[in-house]
Amino acid sequence: MSLHPDPTRLDPQTAEPAGQGRISLVGAGPGAADLLTRRALARIMAADVVFHDRLVSAEVLALIPPQCRRVDVGKTPGGPGCQQEAIDAAIVAAARQGLAVVRLKSGDPSIFGRAGEELAAARAAGLDVEIVPGITAASAAAAALGEPLTERGRFDRLLIATGTAEAGGAVSGLAQAMPPGTRLALYMAIQRIGQIEADLLAGGLPPDTAVTAISHAGTGREQVLRCHLAGLAGAIRQAGLRNPAIILVDHPSLTPAPAVQALAAR
Amino acid sequence: MSLHPDPTRLDPQTAEPAGQGRISLVGAGPGAADLLTRRALARIMAADVVFHDRLVSAEVLALIPPQCRRVDVGKTPGGPGCQQEAIDAAIVAAARQGLAVVRLKSGDPSIFGRAGEELAAARAAGLDVEIVPGITAASAAAAALGEPLTERGRFDRLLIATGTAEAGGAVSGLAQAMPPGTRLALYMAIQRIGQIEADLLAGGLPPDTAVTAISHAGTGREQVLRCHLAGLAGAIRQAGLRNPAIILVDHPSLTPAPAVQALAAR
Repeated sequence: MSLHPDPTRLDPQTAEPAGQGRISLVGAGPGAADLLTRRALARIMAADVVFHDRLVSAEVLALIPPQCRRVDVGKTPGGPGCQQEAIDAAIVAAARQGLAVVRLKSGDPSIFGRAGEELAAARAAGLDVEIVPGITAASAAAAALGEPLTERGRFDRLLIATGTAEAGGAVSGLAQAMPPGTRLALYMAIQRIGQIEADLLAGGLPPDTAVTAISHAGTGREQVLRCHLAGLAGAIRQAGLRNPAIILVDHPSLTPAPAVQALAAR
Repeated sequence: MSLHPDPTRLDPQTAEPAGQGRISLVGAGPGAADLLTRRALARIMAADVVFHDRLVSAEVLALIPPQCRRVDVGKTPGGPGCQQEAIDAAIVAAARQGLAVVRLKSGDPSIFGRAGEELAAARAAGLDVEIVPGITAASAAAAALGEPLTERGRFDRLLIATGTAEAGGAVSGLAQAMPPGTRLALYMAIQRIGQIEADLLAGGLPPDTAVTAISHAGTGREQVLRCHLAGLAGAIRQAGLRNPAIILVDHPSLTPAPAVQALAAR
């Protein structure tokens, strides 16, 4: 007998759950406690143990009930902290004890949240696991800036990429992947911004391409930088902008629709 | 004197707000009431009037307080409903009366939410306006499927595009914009899926490219279709899949990292 209504989500070899424990990969959103979803808050309130990243804000961590165990697994992309395999093992071990486990990740677990590894580990152990979505950093940046990510006829595509992928391929070749009509949202790219600037220019983006960088969007520590692509790395260094930051690179359509021209002219 | 701490967000010619009214462009998320953010719920509870799309779920609409006026502006992408200009005028008129106006949109207002036009109209009228982010449909789809949108070393990029942009350019040329390592999330693409399938194949994506289509993600009406790119339009027609749907098209990296190979083999 399986506790899981959908057998395709379990490895059939280990379909017998080891206990009543469950794992929720929960999106903590960008930082403000009121940008959690109601479901995320419910999971946190019902948790026996919360494993959280270093990027989850103090404001969100303060919502964890006092009786709940709290484990800082300290992962920051590209930085020190627990190895992913150790985190996988820890959440599985806790759930096997029958605990309600929350794995709390900044933003949305599905976007650069390393959710794949944790889902696979939980399923391999025959444990019930779910994703509770969160507001991803690009959406939070747009809200804080008061500027949407897509604009009809001007930015009909949004490309989300990261500066911290292991393979260099994720950083190079970005210009080819963003024809006119694309807005690029770069996550965790501050460390490699010099390389990204050079690649985008070499790939044919105009030097005066508009760039907006925003760090700690929507919080008291918010910093916004507007500049051109040429000189971006220097401007970020000069402003002292740090991760977590979102860098928006605009490659608008060549022939915007009339309504959008009026908008762009505002 | 301006009520706005950031003068760059206002047209200086109309910097004097006409009243105490304010406009909140609020993301209703994918449909489940508990996937609203707490801020979105707070804005709904404090609203004098809510203008909502046809796609906002009954479950979310039920949260609107009884004393609050509710206006169905009935916009469905590509479908009938109020003209965007009429919506812009209506929310501005209500805010000018001093009302707390909520413009409630399914998903996230910043992603294919036509927020740009409404922000511009509000600012041109000198009104205070904000974006309250919501869970976008791609994040909701990933959560419902239990599969992240990005996977380290396999899908390091997420391309978000729509099938309903006015310009044909948004639909054509997608294959060029998704080199190996990209997952494509298509919004509102059911109506044009035949054209999109043909374009992606003509652009060089393999016929056996994995595609997952999910409609009404996370609700009781959820439908999931897994198929190959070749034959996608026919499979969607046969399954009777309708908008709102998300179509995920996988173009994985050619050389996945070992950890990810293990994941892919699960």
